[in-house]
Amino acid sequence: MKKVIVHSPASVANIVCGFDIMGFSIEDPYDKLVMTLTDKKGVTIINKDNYGLPEEPSANVIGSALLAMLAEVKEDVGFLVESTKVIKPGSGIGSSAASAAGAVVGANHLLKNCFSKKDLVRFAMSGEEVASGARHADNIAPCIYGGVTLIRSCGELDIVSIPAPELFITILHPQIEVKTSEARKVLKSDITLKDATKQWANVAGLVAGFLQNDYDLIGRSLEDVVAEPARSIFIPAFYEVKEACMKAGALGGGISGSGPSVFMFSKDQPTAENVRWAMQEVYRKKNIEFNIYVTTINKQGIRLSEN
Amino acid sequence: MKKVIVHSPASVANIVCGFDIMGFSIEDPYDKLVMTLTDKKGVTIINKDNYGLPEEPSANVIGSALLAMLAEVKEDVGFLVESTKVIKPGSGIGSSAASAAGAVVGANHLLKNCFSKKDLVRFAMSGEEVASGARHADNIAPCIYGGVTLIRSCGELDIVSIPAPELFITILHPQIEVKTSEARKVLKSDITLKDATKQWANVAGLVAGFLQNDYDLIGRSLEDVVAEPARSIFIPAFYEVKEACMKAGALGGGISGSGPSVFMFSKDQPTAENVRWAMQEVYRKKNIEFNIYVTTINKQGIRLSEN
Repeated sequence: MKKVIVHSPASVANIVCGFDIMGFSIEDPYDKLVMTLTDKKGVTIINKDNYGLPEEPSANVIGSALLAMLAEVKEDVGFLVESTKVIKPGSGIGSSAASAAGAVVGANHLLKNCFSKKDLVRFAMSGEEVASGARHADNIAPCIYGGVTLIRSCGELDIVSIPAPELFITILHPQIEVKTSEARKVLKSDITLKDATKQWANVAGLVAGFLQNDYDLIGRSLEDVVAEPARSIFIPAFYEVKEACMKAGALGGGISGSGPSVFMFSKDQPTAENVRWAMQEVYRKKNIEFNIYVTTINKQGIRLSEN
Repeated sequence: MKKVIVHSPASVANIVCGFDIMGFSIEDPYDKLVMTLTDKKGVTIINKDNYGLPEEPSANVIGSALLAMLAEVKEDVGFLVESTKVIKPGSGIGSSAASAAGAVVGANHLLKNCFSKKDLVRFAMSGEEVASGARHADNIAPCIYGGVTLIRSCGELDIVSIPAPELFITILHPQIEVKTSEARKVLKSDITLKDATKQWANVAGLVAGFLQNDYDLIGRSLEDVVAEPARSIFIPAFYEVKEACMKAGALGGGISGSGPSVFMFSKDQPTAENVRWAMQEVYRKKNIEFNIYVTTINKQGIRLSEN
């Protein structure tokens, strides 16, 4: 029987100023899926972790993504998926995207790559819809394309890879829950033209910084006047953490996705480790459980192996 | 007596989606200034054209920019400026910026380049203030830096050069007046987060398109959901012109600055000439006087010569 092992990475959506349009995948952590092609149409999911996620395909991120894919497959085939999640659901580092994107990339391999990357993003978005109610691609696209990606348009999908220089990332994951739907609710449906202009100036700076390997410009552009002021209330000691990280030498950073994770970019690994200590220092005093990852941008995205 | 001749180019601000943050200077048309260093503090302006602009320095764009500069010069020096404007005031292709930027770049040459480019932008912004009431740099910066520039921040000035591939530009200048202050009034002070997100996705695409020489991406990103819907009402047959230009092979385009000029990007000169014919075709039927320029991006910006 045809089988594939999928390593599907966590990712950081928004990248501070790029609200709803940008993201990048990271080397660590990642989920593991073992997928087998079956000769019966349909999806069977077996959870190998303790997160208690539903195994009913239509209620499951993996299942919904694969069912969207199977709806466009003529042959009577299906998938058995054993899922071992390492990326905690609700962490803000693309847990559902890793499941959905990993599943469709693995399935496409089992189907001899009959779908394009853009098709795969489309299928995986059905998984995101189950998780958060919104068909967004800012975590899925970087998982599937690798590196930093821009979703210029989510309607008629337009995904652009943005080559970036080497960057080290420190991620603080406070063990609290922030529901994406709640994090959406605190955003106003209107913003001032002044703030909007500031935001797209920073987006332009960030993209130019990535493409021109200009670390200082990347740092200066990591400013969010739209989501951060509203969403930071959900994250204990957010501004204290940010200040400590900047003092420790970080280029800049902010909320990962809709939180509660907070990420920081650094130019080199020693600085990223200093940033880790700065985060720990603040959170140890607060009596809140947390994890910290030090990692890099994952340029390849999802990895497949046969054993 | 020390003398310099300044060729100061027209420019296109906003570049469709980059409202208030981007611009590029063009090869043609340009203004001519003949500047002489004098040993008396102050500015004397002589207009050599028929636009009837004020010659009183504090009421004149050139004068205001130079007075802002002289306020930071210790020596008792001044400037005699003979100005020949070719770029019609109120055309929407940076007429006031050409005057202000040209004057301070010429003056800096006469003062042995004692000021930085950023200083020069700051002084020239005082000229823009006289012209439109707003200290904006999206025409001035491309005149002084050349090529496509991003003004990431206008408060603490942050100007970023964005290298772009070869592009041909066709500019239609309907001979009607649209005051910048009127064009500002039609913009709402709030926009929806949805539109704002669309706009910064396009800004990101445009910057990535420029930096990666991706003509298709540049074309797809030339979409403005913020200013164009409101400002196009001032420009006769705007959407008809746009459609005709796209049919003629233009990559895309829109209102130059706050109008009334309309610009279109093309990949090569024959296409830019076809776009010229398409513009003419529409406007000839409308009984409105107009000029059309076919030109390229001016990578150098303001040019100086000694005779």
